[in-house]
Amino acid sequence: MNTTESLEKLHRIDREYRCLEKALAVLQWDEETYLPPKGIGERAEQLALLQGLAHQRLVSPETGRLLDELGSTPENPRGDGGLPPLERDFLRVMRRSYDREAKLPEDFVREAARAEGLSQAAWAGARRANDFAAFLPHLSVMVDNARKKARYWGYTDTGDGKGGLYDGLLDIYEPGLGSAEISAIFGPLQERLSAILKDLGSPQDYPFLDQDYDIETQTQFNHYLMDYLGFDRSRGRLDTSAHPFTTSLGSDDVRITTRYFPNNLLSSIFSVIHESGHAFYEMGFPPELQGSCLADGASMAVHESQSRLWENVIGRSRPFWEGLFPALRRYFPRQLGAISAGVFYRAINLPRPTLIRVDADEISYALHIILRFELEKQLIAGELPPEELPRRWREYSRRYLGRESDTDSDGVLQDVHWSMGAFGYFPSYALGNLYSLQFWTQMKKDLPDLESSLAAGRFQPVLSWLSERIYRWGSRLTPPELLLKVTGKKLSPAPFLDYIETKYGEFRTVQ
Amino acid sequence: MNTTESLEKLHRIDREYRCLEKALAVLQWDEETYLPPKGIGERAEQLALLQGLAHQRLVSPETGRLLDELGSTPENPRGDGGLPPLERDFLRVMRRSYDREAKLPEDFVREAARAEGLSQAAWAGARRANDFAAFLPHLSVMVDNARKKARYWGYTDTGDGKGGLYDGLLDIYEPGLGSAEISAIFGPLQERLSAILKDLGSPQDYPFLDQDYDIETQTQFNHYLMDYLGFDRSRGRLDTSAHPFTTSLGSDDVRITTRYFPNNLLSSIFSVIHESGHAFYEMGFPPELQGSCLADGASMAVHESQSRLWENVIGRSRPFWEGLFPALRRYFPRQLGAISAGVFYRAINLPRPTLIRVDADEISYALHIILRFELEKQLIAGELPPEELPRRWREYSRRYLGRESDTDSDGVLQDVHWSMGAFGYFPSYALGNLYSLQFWTQMKKDLPDLESSLAAGRFQPVLSWLSERIYRWGSRLTPPELLLKVTGKKLSPAPFLDYIETKYGEFRTVQ
Repeated sequence: MNTTESLEKLHRIDREYRCLEKALAVLQWDEETYLPPKGIGERAEQLALLQGLAHQRLVSPETGRLLDELGSTPENPRGDGGLPPLERDFLRVMRRSYDREAKLPEDFVREAARAEGLSQAAWAGARRANDFAAFLPHLSVMVDNARKKARYWGYTDTGDGKGGLYDGLLDIYEPGLGSAEISAIFGPLQERLSAILKDLGSPQDYPFLDQDYDIETQTQFNHYLMDYLGFDRSRGRLDTSAHPFTTSLGSDDVRITTRYFPNNLLSSIFSVIHESGHAFYEMGFPPELQGSCLADGASMAVHESQSRLWENVIGRSRPFWEGLFPALRRYFPRQLGAISAGVFYRAINLPRPTLIRVDADEISYALHIILRFELEKQLIAGELPPEELPRRWREYSRRYLGRESDTDSDGVLQDVHWSMGAFGYFPSYALGNLYSLQFWTQMKKDLPDLESSLAAGRFQPVLSWLSERIYRWGSRLTPPELLLKVTGKKLSPAPFLDYIETKYGEFRTVQ
Repeated sequence: MNTTESLEKLHRIDREYRCLEKALAVLQWDEETYLPPKGIGERAEQLALLQGLAHQRLVSPETGRLLDELGSTPENPRGDGGLPPLERDFLRVMRRSYDREAKLPEDFVREAARAEGLSQAAWAGARRANDFAAFLPHLSVMVDNARKKARYWGYTDTGDGKGGLYDGLLDIYEPGLGSAEISAIFGPLQERLSAILKDLGSPQDYPFLDQDYDIETQTQFNHYLMDYLGFDRSRGRLDTSAHPFTTSLGSDDVRITTRYFPNNLLSSIFSVIHESGHAFYEMGFPPELQGSCLADGASMAVHESQSRLWENVIGRSRPFWEGLFPALRRYFPRQLGAISAGVFYRAINLPRPTLIRVDADEISYALHIILRFELEKQLIAGELPPEELPRRWREYSRRYLGRESDTDSDGVLQDVHWSMGAFGYFPSYALGNLYSLQFWTQMKKDLPDLESSLAAGRFQPVLSWLSERIYRWGSRLTPPELLLKVTGKKLSPAPFLDYIETKYGEFRTVQ
């Protein structure tokens, strides 16, 4: 077989695999949004069957043979033949998916998918009912399966030469970054952020935030907000789910969700901005990547850099709310009529030791992540039995956040991730913050009018810059390659810490 | 291999096939309800891929071999071995699915699924825009594919010995009933109904129906109505789509849709009752049939007998509205405050020559069906070029209904069926009416308190009777077998015509 034919065959396998993954994503989205409660059991069966079929499609011996023929090896995944750069990047990503997936037995893949479906449903119920015990058996299965998965990939409990089991999971989300490297970043970060927090003293109170905000009006505002940001609703939509998420059911079908609380206006809004950041990335891959494995983020942390960039760097900035606040006030005249954009800006940035990660300010957010990082590391290492998790959670909550929640719903049950078996995901958020500030620093250099654009609600310059510098690459580049190409730098917490110090320094004098 | 093993293998193939079909149904449901407009192209690809996989799963040579081993033949599909009745019925249905599906090449199945996805989306757009020309190319493909399908099944244009191509399509929905048999039923039916209609004279006018009925309140009432009927919403849901439908995404996940018009209160309500009738059937298959090919209706006409039973025989009856009307009046006090249940009953049964099939009274409904039957027969026979359809539609509309619509949206574009390639489906509705009255006649004999139950909003006796006599069989029996078991009779229009004459006879004297 010649190279062109091999390549064409490999592309066909990839297209069909991605297509099945998208079909799976439809079933998962439906499970999170509209599935009637009793439908969950059969949905888990359906997901398991489709997951098995997707797995089969990717890991047939043909895939391995084609990758070999095309010169892609685990050590040199892009191959060295005379292929064009796009095809070499394609080989790299296919090699990585294939090597990972082929090591998992199909029975395990199916069984894990079935268990995840049931676990996620059990988590949603347990969270509503504040009933950790109802979730515990599922959590144990999730931990076991995650450990098994890492073992299939060649990681061991003792970590001999390859990092422990947890490193195998971290590698899913941020290739090449093990728990030692992450600890080396998180340790100093935590110290610095704790110092800043302490320095800021007791938070001011903004009682206007604690009023009743009608959910129907919140929903209407969030649709307005999507339009304001430039979210093309002919290519996506907004729904409600227990935990906000973004899912890409096709390059022209990218859906986000949020959730509503009558006494919390900010939660739904910042989830919409966060998820829109993910969605812009997913909608922004160029046509030549669509339908292939290259139509994907560079890594989970880079994906989170996009969501956190929009949520925080843009969405919690002063110019952004100078532009948007008048509209929000129109939706809630009774609650916000007497509030200025400046006061609102300070209120939404106020460092408050909230117990809910997704509602946290930019300083304490990383502390929420570090808490989860420490606990999941222990869970996966087998050092923390799942039944001990709530107690350990409260202990770490006191240690990092200075307080603990009354309920498991607002504590250990608050996040969906572990119920999906997504151990190793959480660090991506904090790493995403670091990336986002490295990108933003470069964007500010390139776009001198950035602030006035934000104030005017013109996001096209930002989206164009992100498109040309980041979206266009899809998953062609590794995270370090992408970072180097965009900023000329390596991963560093410095721009993030500078940003925090500047923002909160000014903030202190304003108050 | 022994019989038990063969049977177990065949059941496994069936379960996986059904599971894929359900996954497909999720993607189709989503396409009709929530898919962002630009997502349609990729959704068609996903449907095509899954359709191909489902096809593969069913038609592997193994399926044929297992059926043969178990003694099932095309002539004697239940086999003659010592298998229990349930297994023999299973063999019958598997043999039928296999024989049909195995004759279709996989490329054709995929391509047809892709084309249907695109066609349905084009139809929805064309209907909104009253633009038949935009739908025409898709319609032509649908007709071609339907003709090809019938040919794959061994039917021919000339019909030598097996009925024409259209008979091959009719057989999908009502096995064994060809166009000659249907014409023999429809001919006299049409004459009799036309005579009754003429005899009833000019319809009275009920201007209260032509008021504005707020869509949000209609939606709330329809949810109330589902609860009133006993629709278990933990096992299903109601959404909105261009054309009302029921889909079963699992035995505990049966979804219905309706549509809303601000100036038409009855449309959404009767669609909900109609689709609930389908849903009760789907939800009512006993546990031992679930997940298998036996968890299905006996035929499309029998399925329609359930929906039409609820919509008309129950849902347009006087006792039903004596029970329900007070609630409807509470939802719409301004519009219905001065109306009595009796007047409402007369208004909703008024024979009005509406142009919209799903809004038609029980007498003219069959005329709508006969119109479609005649036209699709001509389309499939190649006697009517698709581009001529709107003209021919108007001509037949004048002939059967005495008038024609101003727009194609309210004419030839009003129904979704042809856009899905579902030629041969329409007769099921009229046949369903006939079945429904045969079942009802029997039910009235068995349940003397039937009318007072309906008036009291107690539907449990009806549901229990349907469960024990009809739902329990799933697709185990052929329609004639089921009819015989339930009523001891063969298919006959007499009970339906008796019902119409009695209802409208009394109706005339009441007016």
